[in-house]
Amino acid sequence: MGSVDRTYILRIDCADRKGLVHNITGVLYRAGLNITSTHEFVDRESLHFFMRTEFAGGFVLEAVLWELKASLPEDAVISLTEKRRKDIVIMATREHHCLGDLLLRHRYGELNARVLAVISNYDELGDLVEMFGIPFRHISHVGMGREEHEEAVLKAIGLYAPEYLVLAKYMRILSGGFVDRFPNRIINIHHSFLPAFIGASPYRQAYERGVKIIGATAHFVNHSLDEGPIIAQSVIPVDHSFGVEDMRQAGRDVEKVVLARALALAFEDRIFVDGNKTVIFD
Amino acid sequence: MGSVDRTYILRIDCADRKGLVHNITGVLYRAGLNITSTHEFVDRESLHFFMRTEFAGGFVLEAVLWELKASLPEDAVISLTEKRRKDIVIMATREHHCLGDLLLRHRYGELNARVLAVISNYDELGDLVEMFGIPFRHISHVGMGREEHEEAVLKAIGLYAPEYLVLAKYMRILSGGFVDRFPNRIINIHHSFLPAFIGASPYRQAYERGVKIIGATAHFVNHSLDEGPIIAQSVIPVDHSFGVEDMRQAGRDVEKVVLARALALAFEDRIFVDGNKTVIFD
Amino acid sequence: MGSVDRTYILRIDCADRKGLVHNITGVLYRAGLNITSTHEFVDRESLHFFMRTEFAGGFVLEAVLWELKASLPEDAVISLTEKRRKDIVIMATREHHCLGDLLLRHRYGELNARVLAVISNYDELGDLVEMFGIPFRHISHVGMGREEHEEAVLKAIGLYAPEYLVLAKYMRILSGGFVDRFPNRIINIHHSFLPAFIGASPYRQAYERGVKIIGATAHFVNHSLDEGPIIAQSVIPVDHSFGVEDMRQAGRDVEKVVLARALALAFEDRIFVDGNKTVIFD
Amino acid sequence: MGSVDRTYILRIDCADRKGLVHNITGVLYRAGLNITSTHEFVDRESLHFFMRTEFAGGFVLEAVLWELKASLPEDAVISLTEKRRKDIVIMATREHHCLGDLLLRHRYGELNARVLAVISNYDELGDLVEMFGIPFRHISHVGMGREEHEEAVLKAIGLYAPEYLVLAKYMRILSGGFVDRFPNRIINIHHSFLPAFIGASPYRQAYERGVKIIGATAHFVNHSLDEGPIIAQSVIPVDHSFGVEDMRQAGRDVEKVVLARALALAFEDRIFVDGNKTVIFD
Repeated sequence: MGSVDRTYILRIDCADRKGLVHNITGVLYRAGLNITSTHEFVDRESLHFFMRTEFAGGFVLEAVLWELKASLPEDAVISLTEKRRKDIVIMATREHHCLGDLLLRHRYGELNARVLAVISNYDELGDLVEMFGIPFRHISHVGMGREEHEEAVLKAIGLYAPEYLVLAKYMRILSGGFVDRFPNRIINIHHSFLPAFIGASPYRQAYERGVKIIGATAHFVNHSLDEGPIIAQSVIPVDHSFGVEDMRQAGRDVEKVVLARALALAFEDRIFVDGNKTVIFD
Repeated sequence: MGSVDRTYILRIDCADRKGLVHNITGVLYRAGLNITSTHEFVDRESLHFFMRTEFAGGFVLEAVLWELKASLPEDAVISLTEKRRKDIVIMATREHHCLGDLLLRHRYGELNARVLAVISNYDELGDLVEMFGIPFRHISHVGMGREEHEEAVLKAIGLYAPEYLVLAKYMRILSGGFVDRFPNRIINIHHSFLPAFIGASPYRQAYERGVKIIGATAHFVNHSLDEGPIIAQSVIPVDHSFGVEDMRQAGRDVEKVVLARALALAFEDRIFVDGNKTVIFD
Repeated sequence: MGSVDRTYILRIDCADRKGLVHNITGVLYRAGLNITSTHEFVDRESLHFFMRTEFAGGFVLEAVLWELKASLPEDAVISLTEKRRKDIVIMATREHHCLGDLLLRHRYGELNARVLAVISNYDELGDLVEMFGIPFRHISHVGMGREEHEEAVLKAIGLYAPEYLVLAKYMRILSGGFVDRFPNRIINIHHSFLPAFIGASPYRQAYERGVKIIGATAHFVNHSLDEGPIIAQSVIPVDHSFGVEDMRQAGRDVEKVVLARALALAFEDRIFVDGNKTVIFD
Repeated sequence: MGSVDRTYILRIDCADRKGLVHNITGVLYRAGLNITSTHEFVDRESLHFFMRTEFAGGFVLEAVLWELKASLPEDAVISLTEKRRKDIVIMATREHHCLGDLLLRHRYGELNARVLAVISNYDELGDLVEMFGIPFRHISHVGMGREEHEEAVLKAIGLYAPEYLVLAKYMRILSGGFVDRFPNRIINIHHSFLPAFIGASPYRQAYERGVKIIGATAHFVNHSLDEGPIIAQSVIPVDHSFGVEDMRQAGRDVEKVVLARALALAFEDRIFVDGNKTVIFD
């Protein structure tokens, strides 16, 4: 059976109550599964339970899922999927560093995703993308209203049916309507340690405030600009000798590493969204 | 019943096999316990299973322990204890920074331990220790062989029957025989990011090697100098302008924070020793 | 001459122009001084020049200062002082960790300052302070208006004539009038990586925002709450398992290290205030 | 005059003595140069003086250099060059992450260097390099002695006359004779925080030692393996859940960022080699 080598990921979240882990592991034990890792967490404020289990084995997936549903409370959100690369579309504007880094990882099988296309409102990055053999779609916003532009973008995205949209320094704000199409499926990299320096020009703001650290934040996009659930953050030290451009340049290495880290977590189904926060099992 | 508010820690390790979590959680579920956190890990090389669970409740401890033993394989090491402060003895030489930091934490109930005494081979730190109302035992090594000195120290320790010995910059090497009395119960802070700069004068070595980071390592003490299982490490950047003394001074803040971090983990029973490594559930 | 071993610190700032360093080093060279370190920096936006030089020697201080004034532009701010401990007063409220850390450093001569007194609006910390042999002044704010309380505090401070006021978790907001008495002489530790989480309860805010890093910021106090020039910042990672209290506890070690670092810089005269930013020569 | 916009870098090192800065800045002042940054440092153990100055201006370079030589002691090493991209050759083996990162930076003018060629003892990376339009030279070591292989490599390098050789995960040890051709001109990235884990398989060694941090070190290559002067180091935290492969993967992002950082410093002439250490003005 080829299925013997497959790995599966089970994710469950529901209101906490006694016996959940015992019930769940019972189903998995009776199915004879070979569990390779399990994480669980109960949010003490919301009293919500989260669990992620990885296992290998050749088995009747539907039966396990059915038995889990039978033994868990009705509010439980259960997903049981094969561990596999995610299909993604990347959106960018004119900055190359995050995009280039993702394309390199993708080329060498380190992104855990298939990049179906890159969409940009500028054409500068087209050569880079096509060099890597990825379709590039230039959808200019010039002379268009936001709604019209978003519709064109959505139409292009629709051709690929991606599981995630990755905003690799895409510099336009997405409308609530756009975001609603991809709930907790759009990942953005913001070039500050949020919630400091929301909005445009965070390095300019950081320079003017005279901070001694700068950073980057990868987060899910929701209706509020730069306020979605945070996935990963990192910082580096700066000092008075850093001008805005020095900060921007130093920040690039943080941005690309933080974005790649967030994507690795998302694409292995390690993130639960818990209100406006994330529970991450890594 | 006052026992309702107590918290208990269950620790289990044994060779991995299917159904362990299900069996264990079954015992806890049937006892009606209120589990507040659970961590498990399987070492993929040694195929060894580790689990730590915290729960609250008023119940017959012996019955739970008995049922766990009955349902787990014979090789399982099981401990079930109330969560409580540990009894410790601190050993120091002449440097005050780690000791002072621990005494402050202790005074304000942040050490999760009772400091029964401080033992030093010098008397400089006596005033500091006594200022905090802790017994200070000066056991000079001058004019004594190592064996004789260790016997005197062991005799003093024996009066307190501590669960852990904390070496807060105790600068003498302990014999194998001494260490064997406290297996995985002696925690040392070494002033380098081990395994770099084993032995004396790590800051001098770091200075001469021209490293750009220095650090500290908290570890269990075993027979090999500075080679016991590592609990916690941290580093800070330095540059060419740091002389040996600058490194020593900058390193102090790392040392004291790393030692305190390791003790917090140990005193909450969050550390398993796995060969020469540690599995830490935090 | 005992003066041979003294170290002096020369600090100069003025509008930048050509030849400044040459002129300054010329004065020092002709005086036969033994320079041990020199730093200079020109802010490229404000075109302002900053320089700090340390030197040793037995010499006529007034003559050097006079010659410097003669050879530098009129707008130059020149200070030439012996390197020595600063006189400080610490203000605290009820948290002990920063205060305790400073008292320990002070006891062992590592603070580079003389702590003349500790003032608090609560009395809890009195025992700790007096244990270290430092005068403790309890000035309760209860039943007083802010103005009245500040006057009482100012009167107490007046007895000591400190060069710096250190707010070691002093939790009351100081009025503009109070701050004006000590321009760039009040150093505060704020328990967030500013400008994130200004105001009270930053850990509660951080918890609710779901950040993955928390931090601390030491800064000079000016008229705007938590907006004065930043001296030092540091962060540590957190995750979803950290409640507010866990963040607060983890943050303490960052706070005390960042405050101590800022004080070391200030008390060695290594900080220039450049608008709302700091230029730091370390 | 086009020369007006050029930037020059002056580097001086010599035994320390009084008046050096005054003399040097005097020459620059009399030449009417517009200094944009100056750093100096005296190594207190070796009593050696280091200085780096950047300035702009259209002027007679030879005259300034001549005057500097006349006014400085005979042992002074003086270099005065235009600030410009360096010519480099990159050497790699089979790992793509450092090389790919450098090629991306190079493509977008962020490397401050011209990559003249990439040489590898394997051919896997050829497609990547040629995709970026850079010559790729495959010089297999199979069936060759080390000496013979090095000669072939040297011959290939000779075609390009690079100022720096960058070892971007080049996994063969270079002979002393090879290294002597490029004194302090070969920069290597080693995948550990040296001096920990010298030699092959540092991630395997780190895994077996059970460290809680891993890192990377960029250094100049000298006769002793992994013992040349360190330029830059960085680390990231790991825990018991990291297998060797997880460490290797996590380490890649550190390696590429540390190498790029070291190259930025080298290519802007910011590094002095001081015995087996580096003095870095950034």
